[in-house]
Amino acid sequence: MDKTEIKVMKKILNLNDRIADEVRNELRSRGILMINLMSSPGSGKTSLIEKTAVLGSLRMFVIEGDIQTTLDAERILNAGLGAYQINTGPFGGDCHLEAGWIRSALDEINTSGIDILFVENIGNLVCPAEFDIGAHINAVVLSITEGEDKPLKYPLAFRNSQLCVISKTDLMPHLKINIKKIRKNIEQINPEMTILELSAQDGSGLDKWLSYLQSALENLRKNALKP
Amino acid sequence: MDKTEIKVMKKILNLNDRIADEVRNELRSRGILMINLMSSPGSGKTSLIEKTAVLGSLRMFVIEGDIQTTLDAERILNAGLGAYQINTGPFGGDCHLEAGWIRSALDEINTSGIDILFVENIGNLVCPAEFDIGAHINAVVLSITEGEDKPLKYPLAFRNSQLCVISKTDLMPHLKINIKKIRKNIEQINPEMTILELSAQDGSGLDKWLSYLQSALENLRKNALKP
Repeated sequence: MDKTEIKVMKKILNLNDRIADEVRNELRSRGILMINLMSSPGSGKTSLIEKTAVLGSLRMFVIEGDIQTTLDAERILNAGLGAYQINTGPFGGDCHLEAGWIRSALDEINTSGIDILFVENIGNLVCPAEFDIGAHINAVVLSITEGEDKPLKYPLAFRNSQLCVISKTDLMPHLKINIKKIRKNIEQINPEMTILELSAQDGSGLDKWLSYLQSALENLRKNALKP
Repeated sequence: MDKTEIKVMKKILNLNDRIADEVRNELRSRGILMINLMSSPGSGKTSLIEKTAVLGSLRMFVIEGDIQTTLDAERILNAGLGAYQINTGPFGGDCHLEAGWIRSALDEINTSGIDILFVENIGNLVCPAEFDIGAHINAVVLSITEGEDKPLKYPLAFRNSQLCVISKTDLMPHLKINIKKIRKNIEQINPEMTILELSAQDGSGLDKWLSYLQSALENLRKNALKP
């Protein structure tokens, strides 16, 4: 044994990644698309899911990750969807979710009839991006109010995601923000990123969001989803 | 030795807290007020400092905490202030600052003639609140666009701060947000909190912000600053 090497963290991450692959494969075999929503606090993840529930015909379930409170899970229930709450507060207040917690949650959730499983990760652009939780799509939600530079300042979340949702575009006329610069900064970090602009408030862009979900679900079920 | 007890983390935090006290006392003896600004990404911390530099007569210096980039430090330099960048990216991408890093930064900064030392902590409402970095005032900046529930969902940042700045109030007419509910939620977590509402964009509330800074500085120099 090489005593100059510290092996613990690698082992933990290896275990996390192995469980993440299990979760991803198991959900795929059940025909369920899992989308990991990552963002800063208050980017509008819950509002987007609420609106999707009203507009779409997709059958959805939401795992809510929060340090404290079940406020978002209550909103999801009020929107007519099933919700499962993971609170990290009692376990040290972790600022991210891990694959093992998703696997444990899935043991308690009746997944029959579900098309899409959303995971609302803990509101934080840093730590959640470090952990594969077994999603088929990692999505970063960026409120347009947060400014143009966030992809450059928090590159890991953008590098590890396939989809970026730029939210709250209804506020654009009131901000000194150039959305083209945001897109350029996203593409600098991740040229492969699919970018959707939308507003859950005025509904603009939600048609493209619903089409994206529908087509990702079909591709998953045809086993043709790009990772 | 009690083998059922894990002592490591306590020791690390004890060391952090000891260094934090040293930093706090040393800056106090030099008559420099240190304010630790914590928030989600994009709450407007840098814009607020830029505006304060233009409007106020206070002599300020800014330590910028970011995982990646020196974008904010460049903005601070352009505003005519001195800036020192701490990037945690090369050291594992830590999502918070620690007291030891501030102490190291202070060894490299010429602090003569400085009234206020702002530290822009890493954009994240979770981890920064867990580490005392030696500030005289911990301040959480909450953009009004982030919604009413954030004090309840991220209570530690609000519990460990003496000041909450509610920013971007110019956007209020365009949001379905009740600022009284935000205040109520803040007070539920921390009844002692000083709350300031302001907009760096339209300038409203900046007079009270400048008075707050001036009076906190005077109280520090009279050795009368609360906690």
